[in-house]
Order: sequence, then C-alpha cells, then structure tokens
Amino acid sequence: MGVDLGALVDGLGRGERRALARLLTVVEDGAVDQLREVIGALHPRAGRARVLGISGSPGVGKSTLTDAVATRFRAAGRSVAILAVDPSSPFSGGALLGDRIRMQGHHADHGVFIRSMASRGHLGGLSFATPQAVVVLDAAGFDDVIIETVGVGQSEVEIAATADTTLIALAPGMGDGVQAAKAGILEVADVFVINKADASGAGKLESELRGMLELGHATAGADDAPGWWPPILRTVAVRGEGIGEVVDAIDRHTAHLDAGGEGVARRHARVRHLVRELALESTRRTFSRLAAGEDDLLDTLASRVERRELDPYAAADELLVASRAATG
Amino acid sequence: MGVDLGALVDGLGRGERRALARLLTVVEDGAVDQLREVIGALHPRAGRARVLGISGSPGVGKSTLTDAVATRFRAAGRSVAILAVDPSSPFSGGALLGDRIRMQGHHADHGVFIRSMASRGHLGGLSFATPQAVVVLDAAGFDDVIIETVGVGQSEVEIAATADTTLIALAPGMGDGVQAAKAGILEVADVFVINKADASGAGKLESELRGMLELGHATAGADDAPGWWPPILRTVAVRGEGIGEVVDAIDRHTAHLDAGGEGVARRHARVRHLVRELALESTRRTFSRLAAGEDDLLDTLASRVERRELDPYAAADELLVASRAATG
Repeated sequence: MGVDLGALVDGLGRGERRALARLLTVVEDGAVDQLREVIGALHPRAGRARVLGISGSPGVGKSTLTDAVATRFRAAGRSVAILAVDPSSPFSGGALLGDRIRMQGHHADHGVFIRSMASRGHLGGLSFATPQAVVVLDAAGFDDVIIETVGVGQSEVEIAATADTTLIALAPGMGDGVQAAKAGILEVADVFVINKADASGAGKLESELRGMLELGHATAGADDAPGWWPPILRTVAVRGEGIGEVVDAIDRHTAHLDAGGEGVARRHARVRHLVRELALESTRRTFSRLAAGEDDLLDTLASRVERRELDPYAAADELLVASRAATG
Repeated sequence: MGVDLGALVDGLGRGERRALARLLTVVEDGAVDQLREVIGALHPRAGRARVLGISGSPGVGKSTLTDAVATRFRAAGRSVAILAVDPSSPFSGGALLGDRIRMQGHHADHGVFIRSMASRGHLGGLSFATPQAVVVLDAAGFDDVIIETVGVGQSEVEIAATADTTLIALAPGMGDGVQAAKAGILEVADVFVINKADASGAGKLESELRGMLELGHATAGADDAPGWWPPILRTVAVRGEGIGEVVDAIDRHTAHLDAGGEGVARRHARVRHLVRELALESTRRTFSRLAAGEDDLLDTLASRVERRELDPYAAADELLVASRAATG
C-alpha cells in the first residue's frame, strides 16, 4: 500500500488522529507484514489503558449506553476510545457513516474517538483483529478503551475476553434472560445493565437474571474468583438515567481487580490468548499459501478424500507435514 | 472412555439408533483419537446424503419450520436426520430434553432422528464438529440431513457452508431484513423463507429483502454462479402453510446443483474446508500440549511479552517453532 508505517507510528506518538485512523485501517485490513511492524512498534508503548467491553443483542440500546458511559468518563477527565465491533457484519462502509453521526454527539470532543470494525477481510475474524486494535488505541494514550460488540454468541464472548471489565446490556421483552444463560455470558459478565428499564418486563428480566446467577453460583466450583458478585443495574440510557451507577460499578470493579491480583491474572490470560491467536493466524496463512496457485495442495487432498483414497484426518496430516516443510 | 468404537461403527451399519447416538457423542465431546477412528471408519460409507442448512435468528420459528419440512420429506419416503446446532449455547443438557419433546412430534417415527449439539467442549467450535457429525449421519444412511442453526453471525455462515442447500428463515418485526444484509447471509442463502407470514410486516420484510437481493446482484461480479435466484417464500409453519412450496424450492435447488456441476463444486469446497479445519484443530491441540503442565511455554512467552521483552508476533513465532519441533 506504500504506507510509511514509521511516520504513522511517530504521528501517533504526537497524538495525530489521522495517524491513529490509518493505523487502525492497517489492523482492520489485516495486511500481515504491516500489522507485525505496527504491533512491534506500538507494543512497548501499550499496557496502560483500562479496557471495558460492552456487549448485548441488537436493539438493547448498546450504542446509547456506551455513549452515555463515555460522556461520564470524559466528565471525569479521562480520554476515551470506542471500538464498535460487529461480528455479524462484513461491511464497514455504513459503520463509518454511523461513526460520524455518533461523533457529533460528542461535539467534536478531542478526548473521544470512535471507530467501527467489521469482519471484512479478516482471516482470523474479529477475535483476531480486536486485541490488536486495542493495542493501537492503548498506545495512542487513551485512558479508557471501550469495545462495544453486537450480538450474543461465541465471537462476542471471545471479544469480551479482551476486556478488563465486561458489561452485558440487556433489555426487557427480548428473551434476553434465556439468551444470556445460553450464550455463556453469565460467566463473562462483571456488570449487568438492564437498559430501557422504563419498559414493562424490566422487573421480570431482573429476577430471571438474578435467579440464573444464583443457580450458576450454587453450581460453580470453589475455584471461582471470590469477592465479586456482578451487580444488576437499571438504566434508561436515552435519558441518561442510571449511568452514574454504571460508572460507579465499573470503577468498583477496576478497584477490585487492582486489589486482588485478579487484574494481573486477567491481563496475563489475555496476552496468552493473543500470542496463541497470532500463531494460529500464521498457520492459517501458511495453509492459504499452500492452497493457492497451480499446485493447490488442498485441491489435490480434497480430490483424494472425495475419491475415498484418504479420510479427512489423513489429508489434514499431509497438509500439516507440507506446512512444516514450507516454514521449517 | 473405554468405548468399543468398532462395535459402534458395526452397530451403525446395522441401523442401530443407540450406536448412532453414541457416535455423535464421540463427535460432540471431541476426544480426538476416537474422532479420527470414527471418521476414518465412516468416511468410506458417507457421501450420499443431501445436506440442508436451515438458519435464522432466535424467534423466527426455525424448529417448527424444520419439523414441518422434515415431515414432508418423510411423506415422500425419505429418511431424515435433524442436527440442531446452537453456536450460542455451551450447554446441551436442556437441548437433549428439547430433542425428546420434538421427537414426540414425529410420533416415534423411526425415519426421523433429532439431535442437538452445543458448543461445549469444542476447541475448534461447532464449525469443527458439525461437518463431522454430518459424516456420521450421512454414513448412517439418512437421505436428508438437516442442520438447523440458531443465530445470525459468522459461525452460522460457517456452519451453513457444510450444506448443499441453505435456507434462511426470517420473520416480520424482528429487524431481520437489516440483520440479513449485515450478516452476509444474502450471499449464502439459496432459499429465503418468511415465516409467521400472517403477522403484520411480512410484505415490508419481503420487499426489503428483495431490494437487498437486487442490489447485491447488481453489484456482484460476473463470476457469480448463474442460473439460481433465491426464491423468497412465505410460510406459517405452525399451521403447515406454505411448506409444500418450501420443499419444492429445495428440490428445485437440488436439481439445479446436479444439473450444472455446482453441486460437485460445492462438495469439493466443503471437503477442502474440512481438511483445513482438521489441520488447524490439530495445530491448536499441539499449542495446548505446549501450554500445559509445569513447562507451560505460553506462560513463559506471555510473561516476556508483558515485560515488553518480546512483542506478541515474535512470541507467536517462538510458539510456532516449538510446535514444529514437537510434531516434526
């Protein structure tokens, strides 16, 4: 792409927004050599930001809630980056327009930065790109990085694993209680927020959720991290109601993490996860190289599997042997 | 586990349901050596089933639609297996109860088999386990294997990639039109079904969807497979309305695949995908071995990354080198 990465990294150090935006594009487009260079240069500068995950199904009012929380962080003098991640979207064009509309809500406040990421172009998906985008935002010096993710499912839980504190937003009347239980988000949530709490069914949702949490607690082993019981808060984000309590809960959770050593453990687990994902991604790329061009090895192997000469596992073994030869 | 896999494979050949259920448990629990043995034994017998994917958001009436379609297949003398896959659920206990309730709807018809799979215990996720469960059901001799998947997102699209024909179910009033566009399901759908078509908003959803399809068609390149335009059908599955038309569309799509060579190409792509996923899964397992026990390599690498001695990419390279040494 002819991008001068060194100049962008320098620009980031000087607080240039344009450099930040272009570095995030490098992360999003996933040109691997550039990505390596960017992360190699920025990693020494990262590690200070607090990372907050805000997740929930479409329609629970996640963006409004995120913006309201960000506004409070700003009022406390903290700079905020919002990374809006949509695992269900292969597009980012529309999302960029949305970014501009949302930025207007923050009155061109230089202390708030909003960026959307879609799954376009990622071999490893957003669970691969998100932690790297967080490194860029962290190195850019933001005090708080908020990862806002759409949807309920595996990818959402994976992305939430990048956060220090994970907030799950729900809303009455969406079958969210059941969804929460199914998606395994009960285990990852540090704070629950029932948004649109003025709608009917908020009480029912809260008691449903509380029941599931107690059930989960009763069946959980003794090796669970003690001392933090995820609060269930109610908000009406469009009117700013309850947001102070949400920010208090986030701050209390930060203090809890700092006090008990759990924060250190979480960050360590996150780095482990990242290193592993990068190694897997590298393996995927090796496979892709072997599966390209005239001598497409995967094509040959698949044909042999279809002729029942090989079973799929034996074919996978051959792919691995070739892959080791190609990189060893 | 002390399971006699050879006996189970023989039992499957004799049409024993108990053997089938236990082989699917082997696939679901992901004990790899057993899985290899099972697939190695069953692969030569598979390859005859027609595989249908039925996907859609929670609440669109997917299970009812699936059961109604299965009943029609049965009426045409075809045996049917339904694999209900929920990428958002780490549990399968509740799902098993659900299976029993659904089986009752088929009056203990021996020609219908229903099984739920959740994401519990899969290193590689359901996109890894699903194609292998399909091999088992295919080898068991079912004419039609229906993969019913919950949710809208990447994993759903991956799972749909296992099918010959992919049916996307929507319902009015759920913001599904927009969701469909975002999730990239427009490209994977061979048949659209608007269920609950007696509810208000069905017409609006249909025209929205049609508009998006036309837009997608207009912007698509000339390399698109010609000749198949995904029909948009309306059903009220709880009353059995419109199901005949759905089955007709599925049969027409099967004929289209057979006639144009596209079916062969799809199956080839599926085998490629499976071989690649198995090789990746094997790599993940090697990483897990290196990250276990006292000499946890990932732990060491993560600590060095946290001390900023290594950047994450350099750490991933070290993991790959160790992994090659461990398996080469």
